[in-house]
Amino acid sequence: METAFLGPRGTFSEEAALRYADGRGDLVAFASIPALTSAVETGLAEAAVLPIENSIEGAVSSTLDLLIHETPLRIVGEVVVPVRHMLVTAAGTSLGDITVVSSHPQALGQCRRFLERCLPKAEQVAALSTAGAVEAVANGGDPARAAIGPARAAELYGGQIIARDIQDIRGNLTRFVALAREDAPATGDDKTSLGLTLKANVPGALFKVLLPFAEEGIQLTKLENRPTKGWIGDYVFLIDLEGHQVDAPVRRAVDRIREQAAMFKIFGSYPRFPVETLRDLYASPALLP
Amino acid sequence: METAFLGPRGTFSEEAALRYADGRGDLVAFASIPALTSAVETGLAEAAVLPIENSIEGAVSSTLDLLIHETPLRIVGEVVVPVRHMLVTAAGTSLGDITVVSSHPQALGQCRRFLERCLPKAEQVAALSTAGAVEAVANGGDPARAAIGPARAAELYGGQIIARDIQDIRGNLTRFVALAREDAPATGDDKTSLGLTLKANVPGALFKVLLPFAEEGIQLTKLENRPTKGWIGDYVFLIDLEGHQVDAPVRRAVDRIREQAAMFKIFGSYPRFPVETLRDLYASPALLP
Repeated sequence: METAFLGPRGTFSEEAALRYADGRGDLVAFASIPALTSAVETGLAEAAVLPIENSIEGAVSSTLDLLIHETPLRIVGEVVVPVRHMLVTAAGTSLGDITVVSSHPQALGQCRRFLERCLPKAEQVAALSTAGAVEAVANGGDPARAAIGPARAAELYGGQIIARDIQDIRGNLTRFVALAREDAPATGDDKTSLGLTLKANVPGALFKVLLPFAEEGIQLTKLENRPTKGWIGDYVFLIDLEGHQVDAPVRRAVDRIREQAAMFKIFGSYPRFPVETLRDLYASPALLP
Repeated sequence: METAFLGPRGTFSEEAALRYADGRGDLVAFASIPALTSAVETGLAEAAVLPIENSIEGAVSSTLDLLIHETPLRIVGEVVVPVRHMLVTAAGTSLGDITVVSSHPQALGQCRRFLERCLPKAEQVAALSTAGAVEAVANGGDPARAAIGPARAAELYGGQIIARDIQDIRGNLTRFVALAREDAPATGDDKTSLGLTLKANVPGALFKVLLPFAEEGIQLTKLENRPTKGWIGDYVFLIDLEGHQVDAPVRRAVDRIREQAAMFKIFGSYPRFPVETLRDLYASPALLP
């Protein structure tokens, strides 16, 4: 089994793929999200791992839009990875040498407090990926430059970590989903993700769509929206719920809701990321590999 | 009256401020979102204009988080601005000279198809703002560089527009909100925005919170979420509805819902952006100033 992830190597996406694959088969990096889904759709890879939600930043809209508009692939798994940023330089650089810090704008934002306190005069420069910024700094040999990125990128590209865990918030986690061609079987502790649009934008329309879930005693774990990309203010509603699509209560609720929806698509049912593992991640972020 | 916006000048934020102020008083640019809200909180400015939603990209999470966690300011108005990207160079550059295109990563993404077709070999470089990218190109005098940004930035900084409306999707609009210290009075055609967290994450909890709105016949125009920034999977729900918070049905529904919520905050009631103006925007994007 090959698991595909968004390269370059050394990103949190690679870490998610490592955790998802869990030793089964090889990992393979692709350069874009469309390449990832094509790889799985054509059989080049068994599964592709994509970020879907961050505990601080919220939804990863490009992945949601992919599920809504573009791919027939199914969500077959989820994995949560802690986001830990390191300050990385070329070998021999020390803090006083640094005049430029580069990273993806989101990583710069996530380390704002550290940068204000420890590098208040450094110029911040945007890069297209954290791992790319680390690679450029590690290979560039410019002692005035530092990058922000994952420990794994520093290790892969030979960068020197001069400060660890510089992110403002330690409880910063990203949830990834694994996409594959076939549905995952029920395990007894599953989640189902789906999307729908309402037939009419009238008072109570959304409320009525949620009624069957409430009546079947189904717990919704997420409710959010994405623009339809047509008229501003028209939305696709995205729902995560507890249970597998083959479970009788879920099947009954879905059958009733499908009738009320203009668009309706089940993205997949998949084993829930273990709550105990999640508790461990929150309990000791600094002890993680 | 002074209206504050996120600089530099020449961004869509400035255009939104121009439309919101509508000739009343001056515009003033600030360098960060916290500076904008401080300006209004301290009386330096009457109102500040912030992007809250784009018809393609979805919610602007930083603005939502500001309303949830940080500012006591009230939403007092909304304005919708079309997003139109231009390819800008220094004077005298033509398409064949361009080897580098810089802009904010979001703008690069919004012009992906144009770039693939017309500049397939150009390197894409991230910048911190579209207007900043245009200014650098216009002043840099490097004929190998182009920037993607608003027409207004090209005009302000003396750049040459060599291609117009290069965005993939023409119906690309951004909604901005205006924040001020005091609530806006009811006009008869208003919206109200609010946020809440549920007391218990049990089946039907969200459904029960929405019940009073359905029973009062109140139309919800938006329902989305943001992470609480605590445990991954805990959310603040954000609701927009038709009506002003002083209207009797809204007041009755809000009183009932407040009891069921752990956190509850009304962000403001404000006149709805006119539907006819919105129709005009969709009907003729290329005719806009």
